[in-house]
Amino acid sequence: MSDAYARLMDRVRDIGRFRAIEALLEWDQETYMPPGGVKARAEQIALIAGVAHERMVADETKALLEEAAAHDEDYVAVTNLRETRRTFDRASKVPTELVKEIAHTSAMAKEAWVKARKDSDFPTFAPLLGKMVDLKKQLADHVGYETEPYDALMDEFEPGARAADIDELFATLRDQTVALLRKIQAASDKPDAAILTRHYPQAQQEVLSRQMATALNFDFDSGRGDVTVHPFCTTIGGCDDVRITTRYLEDFLPAAMFGTMHETGHGLYEQGLPVEHRFTPMGDCISLGIHESQSRMWENMVGRSRGFWEHHYAGVQVMFPDALGDVSLDAFYRAINTVAPSFIRVEADELTYNLHIALRFEIERGIFTGKLKIEDIPAAWSEAFDRFLGVTPDNDAEGCLQDIHWSMGIFGYFPTYALGNLYAAQFFGQAEKDIPDLANRIRANDHKPLLAWLREHIHQHGMRYRAGELVEKVTGKPLSIEPFMGYVTAKFSEVYGL
Amino acid sequence: MSDAYARLMDRVRDIGRFRAIEALLEWDQETYMPPGGVKARAEQIALIAGVAHERMVADETKALLEEAAAHDEDYVAVTNLRETRRTFDRASKVPTELVKEIAHTSAMAKEAWVKARKDSDFPTFAPLLGKMVDLKKQLADHVGYETEPYDALMDEFEPGARAADIDELFATLRDQTVALLRKIQAASDKPDAAILTRHYPQAQQEVLSRQMATALNFDFDSGRGDVTVHPFCTTIGGCDDVRITTRYLEDFLPAAMFGTMHETGHGLYEQGLPVEHRFTPMGDCISLGIHESQSRMWENMVGRSRGFWEHHYAGVQVMFPDALGDVSLDAFYRAINTVAPSFIRVEADELTYNLHIALRFEIERGIFTGKLKIEDIPAAWSEAFDRFLGVTPDNDAEGCLQDIHWSMGIFGYFPTYALGNLYAAQFFGQAEKDIPDLANRIRANDHKPLLAWLREHIHQHGMRYRAGELVEKVTGKPLSIEPFMGYVTAKFSEVYGL
Repeated sequence: MSDAYARLMDRVRDIGRFRAIEALLEWDQETYMPPGGVKARAEQIALIAGVAHERMVADETKALLEEAAAHDEDYVAVTNLRETRRTFDRASKVPTELVKEIAHTSAMAKEAWVKARKDSDFPTFAPLLGKMVDLKKQLADHVGYETEPYDALMDEFEPGARAADIDELFATLRDQTVALLRKIQAASDKPDAAILTRHYPQAQQEVLSRQMATALNFDFDSGRGDVTVHPFCTTIGGCDDVRITTRYLEDFLPAAMFGTMHETGHGLYEQGLPVEHRFTPMGDCISLGIHESQSRMWENMVGRSRGFWEHHYAGVQVMFPDALGDVSLDAFYRAINTVAPSFIRVEADELTYNLHIALRFEIERGIFTGKLKIEDIPAAWSEAFDRFLGVTPDNDAEGCLQDIHWSMGIFGYFPTYALGNLYAAQFFGQAEKDIPDLANRIRANDHKPLLAWLREHIHQHGMRYRAGELVEKVTGKPLSIEPFMGYVTAKFSEVYGL
Repeated sequence: MSDAYARLMDRVRDIGRFRAIEALLEWDQETYMPPGGVKARAEQIALIAGVAHERMVADETKALLEEAAAHDEDYVAVTNLRETRRTFDRASKVPTELVKEIAHTSAMAKEAWVKARKDSDFPTFAPLLGKMVDLKKQLADHVGYETEPYDALMDEFEPGARAADIDELFATLRDQTVALLRKIQAASDKPDAAILTRHYPQAQQEVLSRQMATALNFDFDSGRGDVTVHPFCTTIGGCDDVRITTRYLEDFLPAAMFGTMHETGHGLYEQGLPVEHRFTPMGDCISLGIHESQSRMWENMVGRSRGFWEHHYAGVQVMFPDALGDVSLDAFYRAINTVAPSFIRVEADELTYNLHIALRFEIERGIFTGKLKIEDIPAAWSEAFDRFLGVTPDNDAEGCLQDIHWSMGIFGYFPTYALGNLYAAQFFGQAEKDIPDLANRIRANDHKPLLAWLREHIHQHGMRYRAGELVEKVTGKPLSIEPFMGYVTAKFSEVYGL
C-alpha cells in the first residue's frame, strides 16, 4: 500500500464521516428535531455538505489519486481508487455556482410542488420544473455522456446504466406485464383487499413492525427503528449504526408491515457491508438498484410469500382479533397479493409497480431528449397511463404531481426502483438454487440462510463490482426480465387461479 | 461594519455550527444511538472538533481579527471581537500535540476511574490522575496566568475568575454555612425526608416532568425532553433547538422533578439568547456560573419555594396517591427542603451543596499550586469533609472518586456550581425588588414575569458583559455571599423553626 493511497483513504474516510454526520442531521430532522430547529438545521446541512465537497474536489485529492493509481493494484485499492476517481470527476466537473443554483431552485420548486399538488394545478409548477430541467441539462453537459444527457443523470444513482439498455429492458417488461395484468383482471375469483383497510391500532402495529424486523434478523444493537412521515433507511455509523423508519396508518395494515420489511431489507444490506472498509467505496453499496433489490426481496419474495405467513399469520390474527378474526390465512395471503391498476406509485402492487416506473422513465427521457415539452407532461402522463394500465387519473395530483422527485431535481432515479425488482427476482432465483431448502426455511421463520447467502454473494463485496457485473457473477447470466416475469407469473397464476 | 468583520463573523458562525453539530452527535449518543455506533461516533466527534479547531486557529482568523479590530467599535462588534480573540488566543496557544495527549489520557483515565470507583480504590487511579494533572499544568503554562496555574484552567469555564477571589468568597461562605448547618442540626423538629423515597411510578413522573417544564415556560416548539442516564441540557440549533434530558428514579422523586426544573432553567437561558446573534459570542452564554445561576434559580428559588407548591401540590398528590395521599403540603414542602450532611455532591441539599464545592476547590487548588500531592488526596478529602460537614466518608467511592470531572481533565469547573448559587440568590433578590408581586405570581403559577425579567437583564446580553460586570449592572453591587446567606437563613429558619 503506497503512502499516497493510505493518505487518500484517510481523506475518503473523513468525507464518508461527513456524509454520515449529514445523514444524522437529516434523520434527526425527520424524527425528533423540534419545529423551531428548521432554519439552523438547513444551515448545518449546507455547511457539512460544503466541507465534504471541498475535501473531495481539493487539489490534494487529485494528486493523491494520481500517485496512488500508479502504485496500488490489489482489488481493494482498485475498487477504492476507481470509485474515488469517479466521485472526484463528477464533483469537480460541475461548477459550484450550478450546484448552488440547483439547490436553491430545489428549495423553491419543492415549495411550489407542495402547493401545486394540493391544488392539483400543474401549470403553476411548470415554470420552476422547466428551470430545474434546464439546470439538470447543464449539469449533464458538464458531467458528460456518450449518447444522451439522461445517461449522465442516471449514472449518479446506477453507475454505468444507459437509457438505451433500460429502454430495451423496460419495453419487454412492460408488454409482458400488461399481458399478465389483463389475464389477472379477467380472473373471476378476486382477493378481498378490503380486509386490509379495517382498523389496525397503531400500538399493536408497532409491536408487529419490531417483530418483523427482528424476524428478518435486523440487528437492533447496530440499528434502531423510529416513526416518520415518509419511511426511509439511513446509515449513520457505517454498518454499526443503521436506522430505519416506519409510518403507521391505522386503516391500512400493509403500509407499516411491508414498509418495515422493505426498510429492513435496506438495513440488512447496510449492516452487511464490510466493517473493515467502512467509509470507503469497498464498504459502500453498489447502486440504488442493488439497494432496492435487497429491500424488495425481503418485502416481496419473502414477506409476501405464502410460507412466511404460514408461520406468522396466527400471531398477527391474535394481535388484531377484530380485523382478522374472521379472515383465513388463504384470504389474508391473497389480500396482500392483490393486483389492480392504481394511480399512486407508492401504493402499487408488486406487478403493476414497474409500469409506474416505465411510464416515468419514458417521460423523463422524453424531457431530456427534448421530445417532450414541460407543458405537455400531463397529457403524456395520461396517454401512457391508459396505454400501460388501462385507466387515466382524474387530475394532476393523482398523476404527474404525485412524486416529490422532480421538484428536487432528481431525474434518472426512478428506473432504479424497477431495476431493483428485476435484480431481486434474479438473485432470489439463484438463492433458491443455492439453498435447496430455502422455502422450508422461510416457512420455519429461519431467515439466516438467505441472509448469509446475500452477505456472501452481495454485501461483502461493497462496490467491488458494477451492478451488471455482480448479477452475472452471482447468477451466471446478465440481468434479464425472465426471472421476474417467471416469479410473478407463477405467483399470481396461483393467487388468481389463472 | 467592515468587510473583515463580516467575514470573520461568517467564520465564527460556521465554527458555532460545527460546535452545534458536535452537540447533536453527543446528544444522539446519550439518547438514541444504538450501542454498536460508539466507535464511529467517537471518530465523527473528533473529526468535527478538529475541523472547528482548524478554522479557529487558521491564519485567516488572525488576519481578520486584526483588521476588524481596527474598524468596528459598536458594542456588538466589540463583544464579538473580544470573545473571538479570547477563543483564538486560547486555542492557538496550546500545541495540538498536547490537546491530543489530553484527549487520549482522558479516554484512558475515564476508564480507569470507572473501575477505581467501582472498587473504591484510589491508588489504581492515582497514576493516570497524576499524568492528567501534569498535562493540565502544561496547558496552564501555555495559556498563561498572572498568579497561579489554576486561574488559567478556571478561565475556560468562568472567564475572568481568579482563584484568590474565589478563595476569599468561599472562606466566608463556608464559615457562615457551617454555622447555619450546626443550628439546623440542633433543631428538634426535623422534616421527614423519607416520604420522598416512597414508590413513584415513572409513567406519572414523566407527565410531571413535562408539566413542570411547561409551567416554567420551556418552549417545546424550540426544544424537547428525553431520558438519559445523566441529565443535561444542550443546544443544537441556537435558541431554536434546545434539548433537556431527565433521569427517573422510582424510589426518589426529587431526581426527576427538580432535575427537570434545573435543566429547564438552563434551557430557558439558551432559548432566551438573542436569535439575531446566533452562533456568535453575542448570542452565547456568559459563563458556566451564570448558566448555573439560571438552573439553580428555577430549581431552588422557584421550584423549592412554598408558593410554588401551594399551586402544584394538590395535582402532584393526585398523581401519586399511594406515596403522597397521607402527606400534607407542609410536610412535603419541608421534606423537599431537608438539610443534612451527605457524602455525594449531586444528592446534596441547597445549603450543604456549596461545602462540597468549597472542598473540591481547596483540593484542586492545592494540587495545582503543588502543595497537595496526588497520593494525599483521599486524606485531604476526609480531613476537609470532617472540617466542613462534620462527617467523613467510609471509602473513596463516596469520597474523592465520586465525580467524573478529574478523569476527564476538567479542573477549575467545580467553583462555577457554587458561583451559580450565589449569582442566583443575588439576581433573585433583585428580581424580587423589581417585580413587587413576584411571590404572588409564583404562587399563581405565573412564571412569565420572572422569565421576562431574566430575558431583559441577563439573556438578551449574550456575552456582552463579564459575569462580575453583569452582576453589578443588574444588582448595583458586586457579587457577594450576602444575598445567598440571607436567602438560606430565612428559608431554613422557617423550615426548621430556628
